[in-house]
Amino acid sequence: MKIVLLGSGNVATHLAKALKAKGEDVVQVYSPNLNNAKLLADLIAAEAVDDLNEVKQHADLYIISVKDDAIETIAKSLKNVSGLVVHTSGTTDINILSSAVKKAGVFYPLQTFSKGKEVSFENIPLCIEANDESQLTILNNLAIKISRQVYQLGGEKRKVLHLAAVFACNFPNHLYALANKILSQNDLDFEIIRPLIAETADKVMGNLPENVQTGPAVRADESTLNKHLSMLTDMPELQNIYQTLSDSIKLTLK
Amino acid sequence: MKIVLLGSGNVATHLAKALKAKGEDVVQVYSPNLNNAKLLADLIAAEAVDDLNEVKQHADLYIISVKDDAIETIAKSLKNVSGLVVHTSGTTDINILSSAVKKAGVFYPLQTFSKGKEVSFENIPLCIEANDESQLTILNNLAIKISRQVYQLGGEKRKVLHLAAVFACNFPNHLYALANKILSQNDLDFEIIRPLIAETADKVMGNLPENVQTGPAVRADESTLNKHLSMLTDMPELQNIYQTLSDSIKLTLK
Repeated sequence: MKIVLLGSGNVATHLAKALKAKGEDVVQVYSPNLNNAKLLADLIAAEAVDDLNEVKQHADLYIISVKDDAIETIAKSLKNVSGLVVHTSGTTDINILSSAVKKAGVFYPLQTFSKGKEVSFENIPLCIEANDESQLTILNNLAIKISRQVYQLGGEKRKVLHLAAVFACNFPNHLYALANKILSQNDLDFEIIRPLIAETADKVMGNLPENVQTGPAVRADESTLNKHLSMLTDMPELQNIYQTLSDSIKLTLK
Repeated sequence: MKIVLLGSGNVATHLAKALKAKGEDVVQVYSPNLNNAKLLADLIAAEAVDDLNEVKQHADLYIISVKDDAIETIAKSLKNVSGLVVHTSGTTDINILSSAVKKAGVFYPLQTFSKGKEVSFENIPLCIEANDESQLTILNNLAIKISRQVYQLGGEKRKVLHLAAVFACNFPNHLYALANKILSQNDLDFEIIRPLIAETADKVMGNLPENVQTGPAVRADESTLNKHLSMLTDMPELQNIYQTLSDSIKLTLK
């Protein structure tokens, strides 16, 4: 299968490496920034282009992996291709593609990607969708080559998943950052709290989080809650977050 | 060293097993509930008692590992012992002990403990404090036997650490629970999101969280933020949390 990748960000990079590692033929990488296109293309021995008019018209699969608001423009530039065109977005409807091209699909990896941090694609859930059964089969066959967890999900469920991912990933990471803010203001190193973060995540690998909640709020320990709130007097933003989340934990007790 | 353990909860249980595994002699377990005392005492071949008057008076170390508001009563019952008396609380001042007993200290493991989930004590940061140097040395010698990360911290820094731990552990776990609430209302299994949770925590083992933040808020992607907020219209509590945390992430961009 000849694949063209449109995009050169974190998702595009990790996906390209995973496809290449499984022997897929990524023939071309497009980015409006030629340097970025080359950086990624060189990694996987593909051609780099920065002009949508130069995109090969006879590939089997076009993967659009760019910011959500740039998907539509790229899709429209592919209106004459006969291959399957997919995007990798959690929130974008498949219709944005199917109104522009014949064969449309979604190939959404549910993971957080950062430059310089390798991830094993095998353990990344892949959510796929297509506008007809034969294309879904093609996508499924590709997905199961690179991931052990493949889910066929409609757009509504994919959007729910993306929302849940913000709660399970983006918000916890920000709370780690707030913890580090508190620590560093008191000359304490983030290192001291890393084992706690690792164990907190590890605990929900075999349990549901609502069954393993710990801390002062779930104990309704008002004395500790009040001490903590008063320690945050000079950081009203953190005090507000502390109050909001503690109230939410206490609601689960009712 | 002969050790008496006062308490039979999660911290007491994990600590008792770690001490026993390193050959320490835990001779007695006290709990106001004799069954609870026996459950733990049987695990480590100790005596179980449910009456503070029966607590041995000639041990070397007394570890009080109970709810914060029960520490003082137990400390007062130990006023005649000559051994070192410590508590395991993150928020309680050492003075609550030193006003009751001669030799006082703190032995605070910075970790989240749940029944039925084993943890390796070696990787748990232990924060210690004592009201004199010789007792601090004794505590340090014990601590380094069971943990590779031992910190000598005054009470103020320990309280800061405990506050940071709420942000790094209790709040993220609650956010996992809210993610599961969103998923289960849409017939999606928590399993699908576990790899994302694991990777989010793993990413900050070698990075600072503020350097690896992802998601719509840090991209200032108002379109996705608004879509997510509208999906939460029927869950105003979650909508409020989404808004509060997204606003806080956006503040870091300024």
